[in-house]
Amino acid sequence: MCGKCYCFLGVFGMVSAADFVGRDIISIKDFTREEIDYILKVAGEMEYLAKGGSDMLRGKIMAALFFEPSTRTRLSFETAMYKLGGAVIGFSEPEISSIRKGENLADTVRVVEKYADVIVLRHPAEGAARFAAEYAEVPVINAGSGAEEHPTQALLDLYTIIKEKGRIDGLTIALMGDLKYGRTVHSLAHALSLYNVKLILVSPESLRMRREVLEDIKKRIEISEHTDVESVLPEIDVLYVTRIQKERFPDIAEYAKVRGSYKIDLNILRKAKENLIILHPLPRVDEISVEVDSTPFAKYFQQVRNGLVVRMALLALILGAIKE
Amino acid sequence: MCGKCYCFLGVFGMVSAADFVGRDIISIKDFTREEIDYILKVAGEMEYLAKGGSDMLRGKIMAALFFEPSTRTRLSFETAMYKLGGAVIGFSEPEISSIRKGENLADTVRVVEKYADVIVLRHPAEGAARFAAEYAEVPVINAGSGAEEHPTQALLDLYTIIKEKGRIDGLTIALMGDLKYGRTVHSLAHALSLYNVKLILVSPESLRMRREVLEDIKKRIEISEHTDVESVLPEIDVLYVTRIQKERFPDIAEYAKVRGSYKIDLNILRKAKENLIILHPLPRVDEISVEVDSTPFAKYFQQVRNGLVVRMALLALILGAIKE
Amino acid sequence: MCGKCYCFLGVFGMVSAADFVGRDIISIKDFTREEIDYILKVAGEMEYLAKGGSDMLRGKIMAALFFEPSTRTRLSFETAMYKLGGAVIGFSEPEISSIRKGENLADTVRVVEKYADVIVLRHPAEGAARFAAEYAEVPVINAGSGAEEHPTQALLDLYTIIKEKGRIDGLTIALMGDLKYGRTVHSLAHALSLYNVKLILVSPESLRMRREVLEDIKKRIEISEHTDVESVLPEIDVLYVTRIQKERFPDIAEYAKVRGSYKIDLNILRKAKENLIILHPLPRVDEISVEVDSTPFAKYFQQVRNGLVVRMALLALILGAIKE
Repeated sequence: MCGKCYCFLGVFGMVSAADFVGRDIISIKDFTREEIDYILKVAGEMEYLAKGGSDMLRGKIMAALFFEPSTRTRLSFETAMYKLGGAVIGFSEPEISSIRKGENLADTVRVVEKYADVIVLRHPAEGAARFAAEYAEVPVINAGSGAEEHPTQALLDLYTIIKEKGRIDGLTIALMGDLKYGRTVHSLAHALSLYNVKLILVSPESLRMRREVLEDIKKRIEISEHTDVESVLPEIDVLYVTRIQKERFPDIAEYAKVRGSYKIDLNILRKAKENLIILHPLPRVDEISVEVDSTPFAKYFQQVRNGLVVRMALLALILGAIKE
Repeated sequence: MCGKCYCFLGVFGMVSAADFVGRDIISIKDFTREEIDYILKVAGEMEYLAKGGSDMLRGKIMAALFFEPSTRTRLSFETAMYKLGGAVIGFSEPEISSIRKGENLADTVRVVEKYADVIVLRHPAEGAARFAAEYAEVPVINAGSGAEEHPTQALLDLYTIIKEKGRIDGLTIALMGDLKYGRTVHSLAHALSLYNVKLILVSPESLRMRREVLEDIKKRIEISEHTDVESVLPEIDVLYVTRIQKERFPDIAEYAKVRGSYKIDLNILRKAKENLIILHPLPRVDEISVEVDSTPFAKYFQQVRNGLVVRMALLALILGAIKE
Repeated sequence: MCGKCYCFLGVFGMVSAADFVGRDIISIKDFTREEIDYILKVAGEMEYLAKGGSDMLRGKIMAALFFEPSTRTRLSFETAMYKLGGAVIGFSEPEISSIRKGENLADTVRVVEKYADVIVLRHPAEGAARFAAEYAEVPVINAGSGAEEHPTQALLDLYTIIKEKGRIDGLTIALMGDLKYGRTVHSLAHALSLYNVKLILVSPESLRMRREVLEDIKKRIEISEHTDVESVLPEIDVLYVTRIQKERFPDIAEYAKVRGSYKIDLNILRKAKENLIILHPLPRVDEISVEVDSTPFAKYFQQVRNGLVVRMALLALILGAIKE
């Protein structure tokens, strides 16, 4: 059952490219599993175009409005647009934008939509992307807002798992690190809960997954919480590592105590399954030792490439360039 | 009489696309009414290309040199260039440009013209655009210099009036707010004086239109000055609102006293003509209440879109892409 | 003899476009004279494309990673890519990039190569470009690293000499100014030493060419060192002027003493050969008087244009767009 109707048909046939035209990408929660699967399928078809480029979006403009710095995400969206033949405008330096003159976000959006066919927004405030989408007549893609949502990161995480493991259903997946403030893990945890997975959460006591996220996910899938990765490592198929930021700890001694326990190196990986894959939203600091980079476990740089095709798929879909 | 010759022919036929090829756009005063009308006509023809894009300027480069921040103007020019199929280079952060190494504007211009087919310049110094144009072998477009001139803004203001009212001649037009320091109103006031309009100036005593601007315009059209908008509102067709900046007042009490009188809201608009249109160069702070945005009076966001087609027209004309 | 084999054939036929595909451009020392000549020949063929543009690199992405500001070099590379039909991503503001989150250069490179077909890197650290090239799977072009190497500047300097003088062999060439810290003169001095030239070095005692550079070059060509330009001016064909930075002098009095002696003006040029050409990597401050700009000696602005075609040639070659 697809959750969108009461029919008994195969669910995949219910979703089509037309469902995405003009649509905002604000939260992963706005998408059904079938819609997510559809996006990932289109992303797969973008692998070829990501090599040679395309004229699919020639004449179209993407505005990248980055109210906080995120070089990686910005470059990924820009590359996606260029690979499809479109152009990019925007800013990544809020201090020199008209914001300095006191303009509010609603006015900024209503100006930029006069230039652009789609707006990609990164903003430090919770809910900023949803707010912008309410004012904009063109579609808005949330490239991270506040500490909550980063839907395109979640989609590229899913795409990476499918590409590397052939499926998501049936896997045991661990999310490790800062599960309280990490922007990416909340979107990802929700997305994974749409699949038939076993979820393992590994974090210091003070950085456990937020209760409201946990309660919601628990309704759909099996979850267990741990403070130690070594004990769970032998059973997991996917290890998703995130950074633990020093600033999150009021007490530096507490930070010093936990950080060693959340570092992945060759020694700890001796306990891992042979075909374990390790993901990380990047940038990493030292939570994954560089010696791991050259092992077959490491898929975090491939994740970056996967982000490109996923964003190409989203841009092509919402701008109506995918025909069936 | 077109001012360019002594013939008695219809003036419009005197101007052709060839007159604009390679030409600098420094001051609105460099253009006759007939030339302005011609640019606005070409802008109208750009409406279609602004939707789907064009290859008109493929292979051409526009340099956007923004020595002071102006996100809106920069994005407008960039979009215009992209919609015509060209590319954009430049900077909007003077603090990291070679300026830091002590390079002067003349050298910067002589370097950038080796890369670009046209230079768009924004600079805090009066006369900077004219100075740059003297050194550059490629055409220079003034995107705002000092407190004086902003010719492309004036052109898009005129275009908006014609698009919304069908004509400029015969209208009663009020300019309100900071008429002394506002960069846009001087260019606009001059441009309007080429048409058969009645001009009403509304400002605090200390922010009245500069005498030299006023004296020049008075030679051609009827002007009246007021400190109160309510009394003149019933007779005006176009209300052009500008921001009053706190910094302009040596005495904060004086600022507090006047600011309320220069705010447009639904209450005051009850005295307006039914088909009044309200314009604003943006960004606004609070001089137009947000409740006005959804009324038919509000045309300030459409102005933004109009800026795109006007700048497309200018780029296409001076780069010789318009054939007759 | 070309240095690459023991044959007695004409050397030029030994180098082909295929030799450059996928190659890093880190140091001028990585190239033989024959390879340099080949690049300069391709640059000449780019003169035509630099005017009208080309689709040669359509669908390709260049990443411009500028960890320190260099507007001129960045705009030159960007223009080169656009003229070939490619697209550009990157940053020129390290303070807002993910570097702030503590990411290291190796990771940055491994991320960006997932988006880009070629990386152009400018970095304040010695050896940064070589380091990046070791990690990157795509070719890296050094756009200046530390105080050492700036190979594309050296190539455009050579191209300018050939274009203006018809040849390099047989010329007497003076390098003047800061020969110790100047990033460009070391690459250029090495490149010139591959030709049959007489090299004259003119600098204050405290800014003499580094010993290790000098020793290496002396093996191949004749060099003399001077502290005074006037005495050597009558015999030189090419005068390459660089900036002397105040910061280089521990004693400001010492700086005041030398600076006047390293300034080129019309008066001093009365001693010059009639067909002397003056080059400068720019930006200049006052080491070349502006009155020189309008003389036939001045070729420093043409140098800028030449940089464009040289960089077009390099991009086209290493991305495999040149076929023979």
